[in-house]
Amino acid sequence: MDADEFRKAAHAAIEEIIAFNQNIAEYPVLPAVKPGFLAPQLPKSAPEKSEPWSKIQPDIASKIVPGLTHWQSPKFMAFFPAGVTYPSMLGELYSAAFTAPAFNWLCSPACTELETVVMDWLAQAFDLPKEFLSSSPSGGGGTIQGSASEAVVTCMVAARERYLHAKCDAEGLAPDSQERDDRIAYLRGRLVALSSDQAHSSTQKGALIAGTRYRSIPAKLENQLSLQAAELEAALSQCEADGLEPYYITLTLGTTSTCAVDDFAGLAPVLKRHPNLWVHIDAAYAGAALICPELSSKYSSLMIIADSFNMNMHKWLLVNFDASCLFVQNRNHLTRALSISAAYYANKHTDSGLVTDYRDWQIPLGRRFRALKIWFVMRSYGLEGMQKHIRNSVRIGEVFADLVRGRCDLFELVTEPSFGLTCFRIKPSILGSGGAAETDADFIPQTAADQQVEQEANAVTKHIGDLINERGEVFLTCSSSACKSFIRVVSGNPHAEEKYVRAAFDVIVKTTEEVLAGRKSA
Amino acid sequence: MDADEFRKAAHAAIEEIIAFNQNIAEYPVLPAVKPGFLAPQLPKSAPEKSEPWSKIQPDIASKIVPGLTHWQSPKFMAFFPAGVTYPSMLGELYSAAFTAPAFNWLCSPACTELETVVMDWLAQAFDLPKEFLSSSPSGGGGTIQGSASEAVVTCMVAARERYLHAKCDAEGLAPDSQERDDRIAYLRGRLVALSSDQAHSSTQKGALIAGTRYRSIPAKLENQLSLQAAELEAALSQCEADGLEPYYITLTLGTTSTCAVDDFAGLAPVLKRHPNLWVHIDAAYAGAALICPELSSKYSSLMIIADSFNMNMHKWLLVNFDASCLFVQNRNHLTRALSISAAYYANKHTDSGLVTDYRDWQIPLGRRFRALKIWFVMRSYGLEGMQKHIRNSVRIGEVFADLVRGRCDLFELVTEPSFGLTCFRIKPSILGSGGAAETDADFIPQTAADQQVEQEANAVTKHIGDLINERGEVFLTCSSSACKSFIRVVSGNPHAEEKYVRAAFDVIVKTTEEVLAGRKSA
Repeated sequence: MDADEFRKAAHAAIEEIIAFNQNIAEYPVLPAVKPGFLAPQLPKSAPEKSEPWSKIQPDIASKIVPGLTHWQSPKFMAFFPAGVTYPSMLGELYSAAFTAPAFNWLCSPACTELETVVMDWLAQAFDLPKEFLSSSPSGGGGTIQGSASEAVVTCMVAARERYLHAKCDAEGLAPDSQERDDRIAYLRGRLVALSSDQAHSSTQKGALIAGTRYRSIPAKLENQLSLQAAELEAALSQCEADGLEPYYITLTLGTTSTCAVDDFAGLAPVLKRHPNLWVHIDAAYAGAALICPELSSKYSSLMIIADSFNMNMHKWLLVNFDASCLFVQNRNHLTRALSISAAYYANKHTDSGLVTDYRDWQIPLGRRFRALKIWFVMRSYGLEGMQKHIRNSVRIGEVFADLVRGRCDLFELVTEPSFGLTCFRIKPSILGSGGAAETDADFIPQTAADQQVEQEANAVTKHIGDLINERGEVFLTCSSSACKSFIRVVSGNPHAEEKYVRAAFDVIVKTTEEVLAGRKSA
Repeated sequence: MDADEFRKAAHAAIEEIIAFNQNIAEYPVLPAVKPGFLAPQLPKSAPEKSEPWSKIQPDIASKIVPGLTHWQSPKFMAFFPAGVTYPSMLGELYSAAFTAPAFNWLCSPACTELETVVMDWLAQAFDLPKEFLSSSPSGGGGTIQGSASEAVVTCMVAARERYLHAKCDAEGLAPDSQERDDRIAYLRGRLVALSSDQAHSSTQKGALIAGTRYRSIPAKLENQLSLQAAELEAALSQCEADGLEPYYITLTLGTTSTCAVDDFAGLAPVLKRHPNLWVHIDAAYAGAALICPELSSKYSSLMIIADSFNMNMHKWLLVNFDASCLFVQNRNHLTRALSISAAYYANKHTDSGLVTDYRDWQIPLGRRFRALKIWFVMRSYGLEGMQKHIRNSVRIGEVFADLVRGRCDLFELVTEPSFGLTCFRIKPSILGSGGAAETDADFIPQTAADQQVEQEANAVTKHIGDLINERGEVFLTCSSSACKSFIRVVSGNPHAEEKYVRAAFDVIVKTTEEVLAGRKSA
């Protein structure tokens, strides 16, 4: 493909992308394809001869698009949003054109330095404690990772090494001694990573990768599934009793299931008594909301308890996947754990200590120029535009939550809706098969009859959710927490509009009534 | 940015990218910027108000491009190539437009299924053993990871879990028992990952992340730095003597420093005696060459010894970073180790076991639609076009190697040039400060005088390389292996041409003569 062919192909691609965006609401949000749909439509092997773009491009519309799940559709209300915007696409295009696996500063200085600049812009926009800025005396700074999961593993490894070496130092074991190696090998088997049972699965997976134990701490429905000091203290005591050593904990600002927020203020004094316990705050989705002063004023100063703080711009903040922004108060904990020297990396800039080599802040070596798309989006939207987007999603979420509240004859909220997410389920008392009285959502069933009603409510709720997804008019998520199954609805991509959550609610009510009628006639 | 603004912006971006590509040889390959060059040119914080593209775009040429290291320049001969092509850029553009963090099949079926198809295309194009195909009875298949480093950690974690559980099963310890947990905690401290000392640093870093020990096995210069059976056997015996348990080894097809190839055929019988030792073959760079039958016929059938095989299309195979292709003979080893269930992931397709959920093949949860760019490149180039590209780079490398050989009065080759890479250094005997006779490159200095000459040759070689990079006419890498410093030259990006390596050689000779003259006059 020469320059002229590229120009022609790219113009055609741009028209296709614009049309795709303009018609996004018309596509079925979930594709009507069966497993294995694609391979029979494609050749068994790569072509010997070059194919022109005019032969390749039509296959996108005919073979690929029918198999896409449309995360950009306003009918997409599942998981969390994963948006994309035009300036973000331009960032990806330039990033590809400037391809450089810029592991060291020297491997592309602009790639490293723009990342430092935009991470500082973001930390300021969120009003995070100044310790997270690259200019902080504590040695803080931000870096762009591929995903919140990678950020968790990265911090966990740094936490593990910090813990082990601090302990061995305190015990007076000489560096690189056999004694220290053996002590570390023993201690590894005692280490345990913690999180509330509402934290994202990446903490459990991270502990698995880092080769340590993991324990989850149950959060209570009566506390809105927010982890409280009492539960953390109990868990720490239990670890001690079991001879385990907690070295890392994930706290969450906006859990995956219900957008619960852990009790940072209440947890702070407990965490202070465990200075070697690495505190990571996962704000993968809800962190985006800190762009609004009315929300940053409520949460951002509390982030001071965190060694590391992570949010994904690629969820709710207008930058396409991947753009996971990790901030630390002391980058030395990352670089001490993750720096590996090799002859081919040596250069005078690295040796000078004056430059940032982001390879030592992460698991992979190479890295894409992801700062460009963040730069384009922040400038193209401005803080005002980003705030407007977040406020619009929150408002749409409130509209939806009010619709649910308006049908308290059918549904109950599981927790208070927040950050645009509403979690609700069928009201157990209307199922009428047990003797249970009207219950609150945080009601814990004690009797066998109550438990049966709860189980029925779970099954009916899941059935309603599955049926809606199967029909594909709207895509939502079925989840469960604290033994209660529920439906999650969140509509925060750039195409979200109030009319779509209203339409979704109609589908939900209609399907619920159908399921209930089916139960009666059965 | 609305559709019309995007169209205008994208057209301007495309013209800028075309011009950038057409003039790439005119840019200084290494930027003339000092650490901290960028921040003073940019605002301290993000703008409040939206900025139009007409204000953003000019900053790319004026502020970013002057700070780029040009990996696409034909004067870039450092590290390994990291190319990009027009069809690959189009793949990135569509991938951004279709953004979906497609962790499950259901999250975007086309994203998963196209990945399976193109990985099979690639495995066939490389003539890999059929065990690596998705259709193999062994349960094989390929997946796209972000980098070879991630592939190493992923396989290492799978290897670790496979090893621990096989051992505990053999010892009759019941699953999930306290006894088994404690035994695993103990065994972790005994596990050791291995590689030759020529393997990429990602193996050492991977072991650190996975929380196990790591030992490197010295490869000998007399064997062209290729790991041989005798050294592996000695290392395995030593581990046993030290009470350590090897669970994973990286073998390399084309090491980072010199493109050495481990002796797969010779190692096979040793590895066969250790069925629980996971064998990963890292072919990050040189694996691309397997697209040519004259090279796949030499190497591909030998890959049968590997549990996992990895190559990066984003180095030498026309796809921009990131596109690291990992193939395994049995995907169950990955999914058993890395699968974490959570209520919000449950869906009937996953439950059916009929679909691939690539999240269980990797560290992160979300994933980009990287198969698109591979699909576009393989179709746009065809196998013929890809082969032509590899053969052209190999030929350019041979031209350069012959130039070095032609000046055996100045230089010596460290190892036989291969896969387009030439590693050479100043000939120690011409330094004339010791009494050393004419030496071969694999000469191991024994006397103090010989050692001094060697050290001087190292210092002079490094000085020449550093001086060339400082002047920036060409960018090459200084490295060292087996106590010998040398200069690496490899020119394999899509803009590479013979005339540029000839010009680079002139620069090298001129600089060498200047350095030698400086020594004489000093």
